[in-house]
Amino acid sequence: MDLTANKADKGAPTSKIIRLDLAYEGTEFCGWQVQVHQRSVQGVLEEAIYATTGERLRVRGCSRTDAGVHARGYVASFISRTTIPSERLVYPLNQHLPRDVRIHRSSEAAPGFDARRCAAGKTYSYTFSTAAQEPVLGRQLIAWERGSLDEARMQEACVLYQGTHDFRAFRSQGSSVVGTVRTLHEVRLEREGDLWRFWVTGNGFLYNMVRILVGTLFEVGHHTKTLADVRAALAGGDRLRAGRVAKPEGLILERVYYENQW
Amino acid sequence: MDLTANKADKGAPTSKIIRLDLAYEGTEFCGWQVQVHQRSVQGVLEEAIYATTGERLRVRGCSRTDAGVHARGYVASFISRTTIPSERLVYPLNQHLPRDVRIHRSSEAAPGFDARRCAAGKTYSYTFSTAAQEPVLGRQLIAWERGSLDEARMQEACVLYQGTHDFRAFRSQGSSVVGTVRTLHEVRLEREGDLWRFWVTGNGFLYNMVRILVGTLFEVGHHTKTLADVRAALAGGDRLRAGRVAKPEGLILERVYYENQW
Repeated sequence: MDLTANKADKGAPTSKIIRLDLAYEGTEFCGWQVQVHQRSVQGVLEEAIYATTGERLRVRGCSRTDAGVHARGYVASFISRTTIPSERLVYPLNQHLPRDVRIHRSSEAAPGFDARRCAAGKTYSYTFSTAAQEPVLGRQLIAWERGSLDEARMQEACVLYQGTHDFRAFRSQGSSVVGTVRTLHEVRLEREGDLWRFWVTGNGFLYNMVRILVGTLFEVGHHTKTLADVRAALAGGDRLRAGRVAKPEGLILERVYYENQW
Repeated sequence: MDLTANKADKGAPTSKIIRLDLAYEGTEFCGWQVQVHQRSVQGVLEEAIYATTGERLRVRGCSRTDAGVHARGYVASFISRTTIPSERLVYPLNQHLPRDVRIHRSSEAAPGFDARRCAAGKTYSYTFSTAAQEPVLGRQLIAWERGSLDEARMQEACVLYQGTHDFRAFRSQGSSVVGTVRTLHEVRLEREGDLWRFWVTGNGFLYNMVRILVGTLFEVGHHTKTLADVRAALAGGDRLRAGRVAKPEGLILERVYYENQW
């Protein structure tokens, strides 16, 4: 017999870890993270939790996405004492969320689960258009890259990106992570006419890393950077050999991976 | 030698008919048509023309799309005396247009061309999601239809729609067209998981016709209308045998067709 559980049933509700799977359009957000006087995904989520469970708490997110960046398969977690069954939080939370954030699933996670710390990998997509005119329909999710691009060179750069490298040349200042070595398991560039999509799956990403991988691809495609630059950036860590930070609107966090234990 | 053209060159510029091919996202518009104190596509286009050529004029559109309805291949026309070459209007007009309207092409049309009167047919698409949660990414272009739908019945209804019928049961009040017989050349319903797309090409469409065709499909899919209702609506013109007007956000005017002479 589990005495602890019995005691808890009679007194205050025990705490549990709740996992939320959600999507958001980042256009009108300052990013995931709460910032004073700004509209953040974390902020509206914490308000919705307060309205639903009465708890003022901090939600942990799997990634600090920037302003304008979107997520299709974002994972967040928080510790709660709510008596509402974990899997029944979807409807009330969505009732209190704006239309640019939607919870798709809520569930109780194993003890110790933390959406950020436990993340073992992520897949991102980056969609861009090289049409003569700026995109209109669906433009919230499409970056516009003017001019023609050398696709063959870009495909070669994608091959160079794959594998384990020190990606310090592919990050912006402002993050304080210790290691800069990451493994990219899959890197893919698809194209249908003027509409392109870059896919990348890796075990972790530095600050702005996906957008710099894409910005570098653009420069390779425009012949303002060479494949030798890409090799040098991957080998020597020189930020200047890599490209600019591509615009945020094309970027979607597609999926987060966790080990089986979670 | 063309004496008329010579005379015109020396005096006031002659007038010409300019055709614009454009796209817009309808979310923030009251529709195509100018309305007092509201933001219309026609209105912002006429302002952009004024800013570019200095002419205050009326633009003709191929269709009066409603509030929230989008267009990928819209055609507009106007009579102008501008000395700017017709095909060079794209850039300056786009400079004066908001980001939810983009001109893709400008050209001089044959004398007598009128974007609306000369239109010989149109293709529309209507995209909707039957996912458990409201769509987030791309939601500006996707209607949400809750519940499961009987796809086989809906496909049968699409077959019934095809051909020449009196579509008076499939229109909202408020338009003053004379005839209500139209021919639908192609009707198609595609599906990829929870995401569906309805395609229809016809020689003309009554007020709200596409949205009522879709609303009727929804009711057939939910079994609140039968295929017998659809047959009766097509044969007898009874508005009550057809379905509701589906929401605007899923609807896109994809393409407009003109006879070869234009």
